[in-house]
Amino acid sequence: MTTLAVDIGGTKIAAAVCDENDAIIQRWRVPTPMDADAINDNIAKVYHEATAAGHKIKAIGISAAGNVGADRRTLTFAANIPAWVNYDLAENVGKLIDHEVPVIVENDANCAGWGEYVHGAGQGSKNMVALTVGTGLGGAIVINGELFRGSFGMAAEIGHLPMVPDGDHCGCGLRGCAERYTSGTSLENFAKSAIRRRPQDAKRLLELCGGDITKLEGPMVSQAAQEGDVLGLYAFGKIGEWLGRTMAATAAILDPDLFVVGGGVVAVGDILLEPARYNYERFLEGSAYRGHAKIVAATAGQDAGLIGAANLALR
Amino acid sequence: MTTLAVDIGGTKIAAAVCDENDAIIQRWRVPTPMDADAINDNIAKVYHEATAAGHKIKAIGISAAGNVGADRRTLTFAANIPAWVNYDLAENVGKLIDHEVPVIVENDANCAGWGEYVHGAGQGSKNMVALTVGTGLGGAIVINGELFRGSFGMAAEIGHLPMVPDGDHCGCGLRGCAERYTSGTSLENFAKSAIRRRPQDAKRLLELCGGDITKLEGPMVSQAAQEGDVLGLYAFGKIGEWLGRTMAATAAILDPDLFVVGGGVVAVGDILLEPARYNYERFLEGSAYRGHAKIVAATAGQDAGLIGAANLALR
Amino acid sequence: MTTLAVDIGGTKIAAAVCDENDAIIQRWRVPTPMDADAINDNIAKVYHEATAAGHKIKAIGISAAGNVGADRRTLTFAANIPAWVNYDLAENVGKLIDHEVPVIVENDANCAGWGEYVHGAGQGSKNMVALTVGTGLGGAIVINGELFRGSFGMAAEIGHLPMVPDGDHCGCGLRGCAERYTSGTSLENFAKSAIRRRPQDAKRLLELCGGDITKLEGPMVSQAAQEGDVLGLYAFGKIGEWLGRTMAATAAILDPDLFVVGGGVVAVGDILLEPARYNYERFLEGSAYRGHAKIVAATAGQDAGLIGAANLALR
Amino acid sequence: MTTLAVDIGGTKIAAAVCDENDAIIQRWRVPTPMDADAINDNIAKVYHEATAAGHKIKAIGISAAGNVGADRRTLTFAANIPAWVNYDLAENVGKLIDHEVPVIVENDANCAGWGEYVHGAGQGSKNMVALTVGTGLGGAIVINGELFRGSFGMAAEIGHLPMVPDGDHCGCGLRGCAERYTSGTSLENFAKSAIRRRPQDAKRLLELCGGDITKLEGPMVSQAAQEGDVLGLYAFGKIGEWLGRTMAATAAILDPDLFVVGGGVVAVGDILLEPARYNYERFLEGSAYRGHAKIVAATAGQDAGLIGAANLALR
Repeated sequence: MTTLAVDIGGTKIAAAVCDENDAIIQRWRVPTPMDADAINDNIAKVYHEATAAGHKIKAIGISAAGNVGADRRTLTFAANIPAWVNYDLAENVGKLIDHEVPVIVENDANCAGWGEYVHGAGQGSKNMVALTVGTGLGGAIVINGELFRGSFGMAAEIGHLPMVPDGDHCGCGLRGCAERYTSGTSLENFAKSAIRRRPQDAKRLLELCGGDITKLEGPMVSQAAQEGDVLGLYAFGKIGEWLGRTMAATAAILDPDLFVVGGGVVAVGDILLEPARYNYERFLEGSAYRGHAKIVAATAGQDAGLIGAANLALR
Repeated sequence: MTTLAVDIGGTKIAAAVCDENDAIIQRWRVPTPMDADAINDNIAKVYHEATAAGHKIKAIGISAAGNVGADRRTLTFAANIPAWVNYDLAENVGKLIDHEVPVIVENDANCAGWGEYVHGAGQGSKNMVALTVGTGLGGAIVINGELFRGSFGMAAEIGHLPMVPDGDHCGCGLRGCAERYTSGTSLENFAKSAIRRRPQDAKRLLELCGGDITKLEGPMVSQAAQEGDVLGLYAFGKIGEWLGRTMAATAAILDPDLFVVGGGVVAVGDILLEPARYNYERFLEGSAYRGHAKIVAATAGQDAGLIGAANLALR
Repeated sequence: MTTLAVDIGGTKIAAAVCDENDAIIQRWRVPTPMDADAINDNIAKVYHEATAAGHKIKAIGISAAGNVGADRRTLTFAANIPAWVNYDLAENVGKLIDHEVPVIVENDANCAGWGEYVHGAGQGSKNMVALTVGTGLGGAIVINGELFRGSFGMAAEIGHLPMVPDGDHCGCGLRGCAERYTSGTSLENFAKSAIRRRPQDAKRLLELCGGDITKLEGPMVSQAAQEGDVLGLYAFGKIGEWLGRTMAATAAILDPDLFVVGGGVVAVGDILLEPARYNYERFLEGSAYRGHAKIVAATAGQDAGLIGAANLALR
Repeated sequence: MTTLAVDIGGTKIAAAVCDENDAIIQRWRVPTPMDADAINDNIAKVYHEATAAGHKIKAIGISAAGNVGADRRTLTFAANIPAWVNYDLAENVGKLIDHEVPVIVENDANCAGWGEYVHGAGQGSKNMVALTVGTGLGGAIVINGELFRGSFGMAAEIGHLPMVPDGDHCGCGLRGCAERYTSGTSLENFAKSAIRRRPQDAKRLLELCGGDITKLEGPMVSQAAQEGDVLGLYAFGKIGEWLGRTMAATAAILDPDLFVVGGGVVAVGDILLEPARYNYERFLEGSAYRGHAKIVAATAGQDAGLIGAANLALR
């Protein structure tokens, strides 16, 4: 008894057949087409290959970068795929596989967070919040052992929690969203600002980007910070600060016992997490009189999303 | 089969024996002593009077203005009662009644919100957020038919959601908390600011406070606004704006289908709720692509807290 | 040849006869009446005593806590004296002394700043900004050796520079003014917040205010900070931070070569000035590519206002 | 007796021989090279052509987009020309013309503002602030009939007045600078946000940018607003609001009698200026008790910078 997990990312579609413990048995990877029909075709093709290879697929779980309705079928909006406005992805994929198995769709941050809950750092928590620090900032909420989707599928949009009135312009059209201050993009922005403000300290970062500040990317900032570069550490200090502040705001509503932080930049570990923990305490209401959530790094790895999608497909 | 509901407010303790449908059968009301022991004595006295009057009390449900631990027994902190720091109120009351019936303790905003859910405007909702706009701003969250307390009893502290970095000083020691912008206190602050800024329009408000701006109180602002006074309407427009912004922030995490707004100032109705609705849409992520929560006034009245405490006592 | 300098403060009126070098020859001090007429009478009485004592007064210079028009005669508004709305103070005092000598009126922060420029830390600067950190935050600007009053007498209102949109409520009716973040009042606010947030560190401050946080006053915070108390230092760190940020904002417009910081709290010296200098550089545009203003403590002492008024009376 | 005015812009160098009344007699226009030496050569070439044509040049006035030191010779920093770090432009141009005439260098916004003061909307004012709303936001200050440069040449950097702590990332490396909220760039940003938030109202703006939001430019927003398009008007309402707020902040320091608003976007007139005036009054300290500066559109036209440079060359 297996599930087919599919993770539709901005640049590639990853897919995997998983066993009843969500362990990956077989993998596929193809570039993501910009066209919705082509995405569906790719998923159907993988499904047919998987069944042809003898896998007894019980369900397909799709992780998608976009807003997914409470029906777990419909993309209501996605920044990267224009056709995904109120688009029934489950039905469109289902048609291509003659509805042989159920298809469920879930937001990508929800899948990654759920993967952490069932097989990673979130195991055993009662109320967990997972934050994925990637290009943007994704969130997932687990309450009493269940993924919490909200009434319209829009819960856990923590990356768009308003942190600064009239703050940095966000791609969603609002200003001051959390992901403008804690994400890979904001890491680059803080590092660029630091280079402009403190040219005398910018030698290493400028080396890494070949002297062209517009080419500076997150991994270069991570490398510099890990080497002890003062501007690299500054940039992580800032996104860590805002990560902690975002968690404190989240705790005013959810009061979880655990925050799990995943995504590419968390590879730097405490360089990110220490300022997050410090500022979580600094901005947490009633800090001196209450239990505090733990803040830990994700452990399920890059497959967290696939694992989560696999597990959710049968729930 | 009845419960004894007790509501310990800042100035008075209200108590009521409630039947199995949470309907109030008999009432008590006494001033709130500042002393923790005296409060306990009062509660025990009411309990003994109630049993002496023939009521078969099954449980006592206490609504308290303070932070209550996840154990539903302990006050971890309360701004008005210094002794209530990690204070086991359930045990201290229980001792005085020979532990004849169980005692549960719940935060006052949670009780009022739960009262709205079981007998008021919240009935039938799936995920509800109740906001009580009083001196401060209280919150309650109901998820899938259950009151959500968080891992340490500190969920739904929406009044302390950080809305403005470095904003107005809050009694909790932080700055920019939601209740500094939407509450009875902030209503007065906005009205006073308006009087200072626009003395030419301030005739009615100054009349109502006898010419002494320091004596201006919320009900005067409500009266002026209901008469159509431009500064009174301005002040409600501001707390309504921030109420809507606070709801939009809450929705980024919880995505509820319903907000129920209670507390004294909501008596002005749409004067408060219309700016709240307008700004909720204005600041809600993905507003054009999603279902929207309803925003309605509370209907359970001033007994919402007692009713909620009565109902929670047996859950 | 002497001048009579008068400093009308919130609690007392100080007056002095000054010689041609602004040195004080004789002093008076009386409580400030709340009534405008009584204030005028007091000033006239001092004038008559001074002339009776043989001083040849050439002019009267009045320092007043309020907004003074560009005519150097009229109080347009004063928070503490209700009658001072478009009130010609020079004329009303002049009448009582038969217009024997000219009377000029100047804002108190302007007088103190000018005193620093002619006889204190501001000597020799080209473009100077003086900031008086008292209950509020006053400012004075000297450009090319002249006090700069603006077109309506309202220049240098640096205490009301908007620093935080929707920030702390200011007595002027706006929100987020600089003096809500850097002043004696804000020093108390930051210290109170720190006590609430960090009760475990609050022993010394609570001792100093007798255990009653509402009785905490600025000088107690100064004392604690000078003893090395962590919360006292925190509070100064915050008002110092905002002092530096306010200076950086001012420099974006005025680009002065010197900031002189006076007022009661500056007695702590570098405890205030070091965080101010640090944050001035941190928030100054083009910090790495420009000359920087010096930031120094005032040196003219408590008589700066009288000295400044005396000097301005003849200009 | 003539002067040679040179305006080094981001894309082109404009030059003009001006008579003793700053009227333009002859013009040149060449593309701006990225190389500092080539810029100097171009200026020298124009000078030699002018003298060869019989003009008796008395001085060269150069308007440069960058920070100019108080010496009126040195570029301390310029975002677009990397070589202009502490670069003595007057000397480098002077060498190429055998120092036949003096060369003075002035910031471009200062030149444009001065042009308005001597020949445009600023005539007759006592204390004037000119704001040029272009790609960024430039400022110029005139006090008592003199251009005010500050102690290090960095006065009037009003575009970098800090308006929002932790606000939008600015090219200068700071956050929340005024030009992030009121400039041609911010006009585009607000319009793009509006399209994302209100797709149902975005038909006209999308038409104008050919359906590709990344191609939306300021003039399209101006056109839409002038046609009455609701999103175009929204975007101007926002930059107008922040223009007014920036002016109110400036007035807290300078208290001018006049603001002159120039730059490309001011062509829409009251669509920009009315929200600016409204918010100026809304955020001006003591608004009810003081004289108010006038806010008017610039009238000297696109040559304001050349005219100003010509006039300044002989002062």
